[in-house]
Order: sequence, then structure tokens, then C-alpha cells
Amino acid sequence: MEKNEQVLVDRLPAGKLRVEDYKLVQGPVPEPEEGQVLVETTALGISAGSRAGLQGSASYAGAPKTGVVMSSSGVGRVAASRSDAVPEGALVSAPTGWQRYSVHDAKRVTVVPAEHDPIDYLGPLGINGLTAYFGLIDVGRVQAADCVLVSAAGGSVGHLVGQMAKIKEARVVGVCGSPEKGKRLVDDLGYDAWVDYRADGFRQAVKEATPNGVDLYFDNTGGMILETALRRMNFHGRIACCGVVSQYDTDKPDPGPSGVPGLLVNKGITMRGFLVFEFADRYAAAREEIHGWLSSGKLQSLTDAVHGLSAAPQAFVDLLAGGNIGTRIVRLD
Amino acid sequence: MEKNEQVLVDRLPAGKLRVEDYKLVQGPVPEPEEGQVLVETTALGISAGSRAGLQGSASYAGAPKTGVVMSSSGVGRVAASRSDAVPEGALVSAPTGWQRYSVHDAKRVTVVPAEHDPIDYLGPLGINGLTAYFGLIDVGRVQAADCVLVSAAGGSVGHLVGQMAKIKEARVVGVCGSPEKGKRLVDDLGYDAWVDYRADGFRQAVKEATPNGVDLYFDNTGGMILETALRRMNFHGRIACCGVVSQYDTDKPDPGPSGVPGLLVNKGITMRGFLVFEFADRYAAAREEIHGWLSSGKLQSLTDAVHGLSAAPQAFVDLLAGGNIGTRIVRLD
Repeated sequence: MEKNEQVLVDRLPAGKLRVEDYKLVQGPVPEPEEGQVLVETTALGISAGSRAGLQGSASYAGAPKTGVVMSSSGVGRVAASRSDAVPEGALVSAPTGWQRYSVHDAKRVTVVPAEHDPIDYLGPLGINGLTAYFGLIDVGRVQAADCVLVSAAGGSVGHLVGQMAKIKEARVVGVCGSPEKGKRLVDDLGYDAWVDYRADGFRQAVKEATPNGVDLYFDNTGGMILETALRRMNFHGRIACCGVVSQYDTDKPDPGPSGVPGLLVNKGITMRGFLVFEFADRYAAAREEIHGWLSSGKLQSLTDAVHGLSAAPQAFVDLLAGGNIGTRIVRLD
Repeated sequence: MEKNEQVLVDRLPAGKLRVEDYKLVQGPVPEPEEGQVLVETTALGISAGSRAGLQGSASYAGAPKTGVVMSSSGVGRVAASRSDAVPEGALVSAPTGWQRYSVHDAKRVTVVPAEHDPIDYLGPLGINGLTAYFGLIDVGRVQAADCVLVSAAGGSVGHLVGQMAKIKEARVVGVCGSPEKGKRLVDDLGYDAWVDYRADGFRQAVKEATPNGVDLYFDNTGGMILETALRRMNFHGRIACCGVVSQYDTDKPDPGPSGVPGLLVNKGITMRGFLVFEFADRYAAAREEIHGWLSSGKLQSLTDAVHGLSAAPQAFVDLLAGGNIGTRIVRLD
């Protein structure tokens, strides 16, 4: 019988995550029970946010554990079904984790409609795209003519946020970690400007890129970039707090941003944190709109693939060091 | 001719504010021009927020200056008028500053209606009361059965916030700086519980006083108390950021609260800063409602008076050290 390839969290990272914190193992293929499906993963997505799950108290996912499959979204094919709702052969997205086979309650998987590309469920039609969409529109209340600043602007969420903000007729400035990424934001994705947070004079560069201040800051990073953005916010500015990637890959988080809460008071700023799950009852409608943007070419999904589960740990370590643009995918097919 | 007694900012404070940072002087009584009134102050209010105006960039008031009259709200009588709108003899509130006589554009003073007590315009019907009202209701969106946590709970704003939250049928926990204040919060003002932020085990005490978590935190302090509150917030909790008194009386502000923005993300928390001025078009209606609460005995205004302008600097220094409850007033009559 075929074995199930899995990548387990072997050690909780001390300081920066290392490849050695993971272990590739072979296990039995699980059997679905009544109401469940067995999914054979064809691709999974790696996102910086899952680093938080290895940190303990900072994460919504609860205390971190070792000896468990590394968590992630995935897409695949139903290899066996004991549910009438989701037949064998269906293409689905599910929280598969880093493994080839996984079992899920049928109601916890999303069947991919025939007109959608399953791989988009790791990007614009999946958690990343929905996070960008609800964070920008519902949490950030983007308006035409806003100046929108986005951090981790080339990341799996960020590269979609900026494009969606352009669709909403905002001016968009991306913060990223290299000139190469910055140029792609402008040339390929339509950003109006970019700033390299690793370069000298970052604060001044943000100021010059946002001459009329910032109306909406979409924060994927926290830390120094958030602190800088706070000083550029306009009166009644909004900050959508989506993630804290600057503080994930460490066991010594920075102190909070100076200016909180003083600048919030003086500028009447609203900071609102969110998890995309609170919008779950509107996913279907959001996917329809996002799919329309994909079909018309208004929205591009950038992906960046590696092959095979054994490549996943290094791909994650590189991603946390800022080494990619768009959505990082591990293909198993 | 009579002289104008004034208290000037003589030096910008280095570290903690000292009485010596002020200077009492005698100047000429100013003359109103067309459209202006001359106000003779009968009482002025001292509030912690005006310490921020001596700090520079942290304040909405702009860069601090020396040689100017210390800013404050005041109430008094119109001693001379060159405006039909505000006749001589009218009782008014105005941003008088620490001085006996001041001149104002008639449209910048508020005439106190006959049914109101002018002294309440330094407390529940003035900036303090309006700040409590709009911060709690509009910014904090208080709901019946909320657990509301208030810092600087015995302060000029805080002691009104807690009472208004009780009127709105919330459970109210106050953070203050001594057991004496705490007992007054409960015994005199109807707070459900209090916690002393200066006592050992503060975090644990907050936890015990808020067994079901905190739905709304009304933050007058920032700093360590905000950091503690963040950890007690419920999912979708709201934080109304009103002031940062913990960071005013220093030239070395603490770093920002750890947990920002991580806890905001994980708990879907909204932090909203505000200045009461944004609600100026609704002051009259709010005053009507607050006056109703005063008349019916639902709301008490606690005041604590000193006499004479020369007492103002020490009264302010003591207030910043946490030495009073309610609104501190300097009477000039």
C-alpha cells in the first residue's frame, strides 16, 4: 500500500526557523470515516503567517506542538469519499498541511467549481486573496483617491492588496525588501511607487512616496514599518492589521511601536486587527468578484513554485528571509 | 487700572514637571476688539492632557512654547463685550488659560444656559464630560452587559466614563493608583470593581476583576496598563484611546505596548484614537443628555478645588503624580 509522505515539526524554532526544525517521515495513508473525505494533495501554499503558529502565545492557533504535520492550505483531488456532498474525483481546497494525504470532514473542504483553476485557491481565491479583499474593503474601508500603503507588498497577501487597491482607484505605495521586488510591483502589478525598508533613509523615502500622507495602511509586518507608517497617517487614517511578519521569525519580539497610542489619539486613527475567518459567510460572493478580476486581467496572481515535500522547509526559510514574490507554492504532482 | 494675573510657562519641563517651570506675572488687562469679549475667569480646570502640550511632537497642539500663558479651560463672566451675541454679564466657558482676564472671539465661547451650573463646564458639561460621553458611546460603542475597563478611573475624564458606562448598564472595572481611590470608585460612583496599578500582582488582579474578559477598554493612560488590558480583551473587543497620561510627565517615553499589532490581529481588536473636537457639532445634544443625568442624580461630578492662580502649578504637579480624584479646579473667585 502507498505511504503518506509528511513533514513534521520536529523542534520548535529557537530564534530563526531552520530546515532542521522539520523532519520528513512516511506514515500510513489515513482512512476517511463516515462524512469524511481523503484528499490527495497536488499543491500546497506556504505563507509567513504559519510561522506564528510555531511561536506559542502570539498565535491564534494556540500553543505550538512538535511531532505534528506542519499546517498549511492545500489543493487536491478527493481520492476516497464517505460523503455524498463531496464525491471521489472532486477538486477541493482544504487545510491539508504539509503531507500528501489527509482526511477532512466533508463540510470543511471547499469544492472548486469547474470554471475556477484550483491553484488559485492557494492565491487570489484562497485565504490569501480573501484576506486581501476583506482587509482592504471591509476593515480598511478603501476609498477611491486614498493613498494606500502596503507592507510586505510583494508577499502572498500584499501583492494582491496593492492590485485590488488599484482596482478601487486608490494610489498605492508598496513597502518591500529589495529594488528588484519594487520594480516588479510597479512594472508588473501597477503599484504607483515602492520603498525598500532595508535601504538607508527608509523613513524619508516613505515620506517622499506619500507626499499627501497615508489614508489607509495595510499592515502585514508590524514593527519598524508600522512605526514609520503611523507618522505618515492622515487625520482619521485607518490601519488594517493583517499580520506581523517582522516579529514571526524570532523568539525575541521587538517592543511595540512607539506612537501607540499617542499618535492614534492625536490623529483620530483607527487600527483594526482581523482574521479572515470572521468573514467566512461572505467568501463565496468575494470569490465571484475576485474571479471576475482574474478573468478580465485586472488582477494577476504571481506564484513561485518548488517541487516535492522535501523542498518545503527550505522554501519556508527562504520566504521568511524575504526571498520571494507572490505566493510560494509546493507542487506535489 | 486692575492688573491681569497670569501663569506663564517659563521653562519646558526636563523630565517631570516642576512648580519652577511656571512663573506668576502681572500684565495689563486686554481689550476686546470688534466681535470679541473680555472674560473674567472665576474658575479653571486642570487636566493631565495639557501636560502633552509641553512635550512637543507628541501633542496635537503643536510645538510647545515658553513665555506663553499655560493653556486650560475656564469659566467666568463677560466683563466687557463688543459682540451682540454674548452680552456683558453672561456666564461663559472658554479656553481661558491660567489667567484672570482673557479675550476671545465671541463665537469661540460657550454661553452657559441659566439652568446649568457654570462649574459643570469644567467637568461633566465641559471637555471632560464630552470626552467621556463620545469616547464611550461613539468611539467605544458601549453595550449593555459589556465589561468596561477604564484607566485613570478616578481622573477628570475617567470618573465620568465609569458612571456613564453604569448608566448604559455595563459592568465597570476601574484602574487607579491607590486603594483610597478604588474604594471611592465603588462606594461613591458605582464602579463594580477596582484594581490598583501600583500594587504587586497588577496583571493577576486585572484578570480576577474581569473574569469574562474585557469588551471595551477606555484608555486614558497607554503604557503598561494598555499592555495589560490588551491581554484581557475579548474577541472583537474595542479600545477607545483617549489619552496617554502614563507618558506625559517624562521626556523619555516608554516603548509602545508589546502585543501591538499581534494581539489586535489574533483577537480582531479595534483601537480607535479620538479627540473630542471631532464631535463638536453634537456637543449641545450631548450636554442635554448629560445634564439630565446630573439632574436625576445618576451622574455625580467630583471636584477638588484649590484657590488662587499661584496654587495652580503645585496643583498640576500633584495631579500628574496621581494625587487627586475627580476634576481638579482652581477657583479665582
